[in-house]
Amino acid sequence: MEKYLSYLKKSREEQLEELKELLRIPSISALSEHRQDVRAAAEWLKEALKKAGLEHVELLETAGNPVIYGDWLHAEGKPTVLVYGHYDVQPVDPLELWETPPFEPSIREGRLYARGSSDDKAQVFMHIKAVEALLKSTGSLPVNIKFCIEGEEEVGSRNLPSLLEHEQERLACDLLLISDTSMLEKGKPAICYGLRGLAGLEVIVKGAKGDLHSGLYGGAVANPIQALSKILASLHDDEGRVAVEGFYDRVEALEEEERVSMASIPFSQEKLEQELGVPSLFGEAGYSPVERMWARPTLEINGISGGFQGEGTKTVIPAKASAKITCRLVSNQDPAEIQQLIAQHVRKYTPKGVFVEVMLTDQGHPFVTPLHHPALQAAAKAYETAYGATAAFTRMGGSIPIVEAFGRILQAPVVLMGFSLPEENFHAPNEFFTLDNYDKGLVTIGYYLQEVAKLAF
Amino acid sequence: MEKYLSYLKKSREEQLEELKELLRIPSISALSEHRQDVRAAAEWLKEALKKAGLEHVELLETAGNPVIYGDWLHAEGKPTVLVYGHYDVQPVDPLELWETPPFEPSIREGRLYARGSSDDKAQVFMHIKAVEALLKSTGSLPVNIKFCIEGEEEVGSRNLPSLLEHEQERLACDLLLISDTSMLEKGKPAICYGLRGLAGLEVIVKGAKGDLHSGLYGGAVANPIQALSKILASLHDDEGRVAVEGFYDRVEALEEEERVSMASIPFSQEKLEQELGVPSLFGEAGYSPVERMWARPTLEINGISGGFQGEGTKTVIPAKASAKITCRLVSNQDPAEIQQLIAQHVRKYTPKGVFVEVMLTDQGHPFVTPLHHPALQAAAKAYETAYGATAAFTRMGGSIPIVEAFGRILQAPVVLMGFSLPEENFHAPNEFFTLDNYDKGLVTIGYYLQEVAKLAF
Repeated sequence: MEKYLSYLKKSREEQLEELKELLRIPSISALSEHRQDVRAAAEWLKEALKKAGLEHVELLETAGNPVIYGDWLHAEGKPTVLVYGHYDVQPVDPLELWETPPFEPSIREGRLYARGSSDDKAQVFMHIKAVEALLKSTGSLPVNIKFCIEGEEEVGSRNLPSLLEHEQERLACDLLLISDTSMLEKGKPAICYGLRGLAGLEVIVKGAKGDLHSGLYGGAVANPIQALSKILASLHDDEGRVAVEGFYDRVEALEEEERVSMASIPFSQEKLEQELGVPSLFGEAGYSPVERMWARPTLEINGISGGFQGEGTKTVIPAKASAKITCRLVSNQDPAEIQQLIAQHVRKYTPKGVFVEVMLTDQGHPFVTPLHHPALQAAAKAYETAYGATAAFTRMGGSIPIVEAFGRILQAPVVLMGFSLPEENFHAPNEFFTLDNYDKGLVTIGYYLQEVAKLAF
Repeated sequence: MEKYLSYLKKSREEQLEELKELLRIPSISALSEHRQDVRAAAEWLKEALKKAGLEHVELLETAGNPVIYGDWLHAEGKPTVLVYGHYDVQPVDPLELWETPPFEPSIREGRLYARGSSDDKAQVFMHIKAVEALLKSTGSLPVNIKFCIEGEEEVGSRNLPSLLEHEQERLACDLLLISDTSMLEKGKPAICYGLRGLAGLEVIVKGAKGDLHSGLYGGAVANPIQALSKILASLHDDEGRVAVEGFYDRVEALEEEERVSMASIPFSQEKLEQELGVPSLFGEAGYSPVERMWARPTLEINGISGGFQGEGTKTVIPAKASAKITCRLVSNQDPAEIQQLIAQHVRKYTPKGVFVEVMLTDQGHPFVTPLHHPALQAAAKAYETAYGATAAFTRMGGSIPIVEAFGRILQAPVVLMGFSLPEENFHAPNEFFTLDNYDKGLVTIGYYLQEVAKLAF
């Protein structure tokens, strides 16, 4: 590793200049006027992979933006690691809030400012430069490596799942490595081993053909808002537990190991209450807030609408009321099954006198790599060596369906090993990446590949 | 009465020409550009009252449009009847749907088409002409009579209550007579003896300072829509009865006499279901639909709003959700007290983890004249004589706060004796008044004043 570390040191300034080149390309996937820029970023990365010493480098075309592939497969008998990341970035508005232009990278106080610096160009770049440094300094890699870098992550990775299906063989691996998540805070690395899934529905309650005068008809007909409220109120018990029959059937109990791990996360209930401005936290009885946010399923009503919503009073019995619902899923909960259970519940709890419709919307599977998986433990070891700090094992409450798709289609464990910090303004003006994590991250990646080489999958 | 009837016959065409004059004045109170027209209608009526033989005729000025007063008080020892009506009319748009222009009165197939014909100019005019005919044909009236005709009924009678307070003495009476309601149908007169009151609130539930990402925070905090649903669901039991403690405390049981009377109203549950397009009627257990619409209090949610209401999915935990509520009140329910009871209930049923605010909005007292009151029975007799049909005693589910204000401030029973038909398009294009009811109505009024003369108050 000494050669690797000294190579990194030697080439640091040159590397950062290269990274700035990549950051100058405004590869905003959400805006069609940047379509050429997105492709330019893909081409740039293709060359970077080649320069790093990767082989079979090519752009895999999709119905949208291309995926960059490249590999190095000469570590016979060793595990194969697939690195996933993305080269597209978020839009930049409101532009006037940026202190320096989003596509003119600028280093200030150890921070590299630019759109895409933290999410996710620098982290993708680090994996390429780690490979380059290993190959240039030692002549080989401790493991086989493949890259799969997409250009549509910020617009929902819409073409990636079908590419994964078609390219299963090319992308086959023992382990998926992704650097697109955050550390807990400066100096406190985090390894994310789980993400929640998603199941969405919309409930529409209808009464009369049109809004009715509540004086003339009040008392004679059911009120769709009242009926919808009864339905929605029935979805949770008073202690915040989801009351839909079967909802928790496929949820595995948290292992003691995980609960201990989550209890060790620095977390202040009071601080979060203050930050959010809520009178108190609230949620499923029997679980800590961290457990509830990371590892327990939820059912949230995201929006509700019905009747007169303007200023003042309008004494109508509305014809219609509707609500949007999404669940966050864990363990083996299946989005389609959860949608069905909720739809059944809704029908069962619909009061007399109204019609009810249930529309099924979003679906995303939950994902978790078992906490005791050696690939996770190896990551902790690498962080420990590079940062001199114990990495926290975290789960994220959000859903990144593509991560689950990767794990499921390629049948490999996923390690989310992020080097960004929560305060780095991703998706917002003045996005930056902390250069201290650039340096320590490169070290971490080097050690990690060494650790993975020792594993049998 | 013979002289009266023959006078009516003789003067009919002349009367209708006069009525058309009044109908030509576009006295739309909601539109400021018609301010002068509104005043012109008041002046026209002042002259009409004088011509009819009324005394002390004058315009009582208010902060808005004037009230026309006039009296005839020479029936010593006899009751005093105060006739209330209004000379202002609704706007006319959409103008293109009128078959003949709204302010060019046109008689077709026994119907007098014009804005304000049914609501309420013809009915006001009939009372004036009844007095005129009695005075011209018999030289006197069987009772003392006062007129109070306002010009702001279509905009909420905002200046009338304070005028009633200031002019209590001038307006003192034994009986209030109003012709601004509908018959059941052609040939079936109705005497309305009750209107429901109104109590309004808005409930606002707040959680975090802003919308939260349901992935990151879902499970940790209460959801304001969920909390609001729990609150709203608690407002009724499953049989449609309002579950707010004390809500029914001041509601008097329906007298057997009233229930029998309401059961005799022609009403088809099936027909109403079909007309409204609901799967079934629904409401408070133990009462018929007619009883529920006319004589039982209700609590309706008129509108609800919260979180993401656009197309598609947005996985937020909303910061806020709110609902608008109005109650229809009966018997001795007091709007202010009902608002307080509901506010208490809302606070009691607000789940943990959210803030709740309750805003009090509308207030209107219910009104009812006891069904056995002789002034009501006298009205039935008059209708029977003029129409050869038994009048139905009805209550209306709506609220006309000014009627209750009249009854309360002047301490007199109110008789709502309407001559319009439900199909006469009031507030809509092609408003008309049925001339058969013009003729029979004048007869009815004549007989009614005779009947009232026999009563002791």
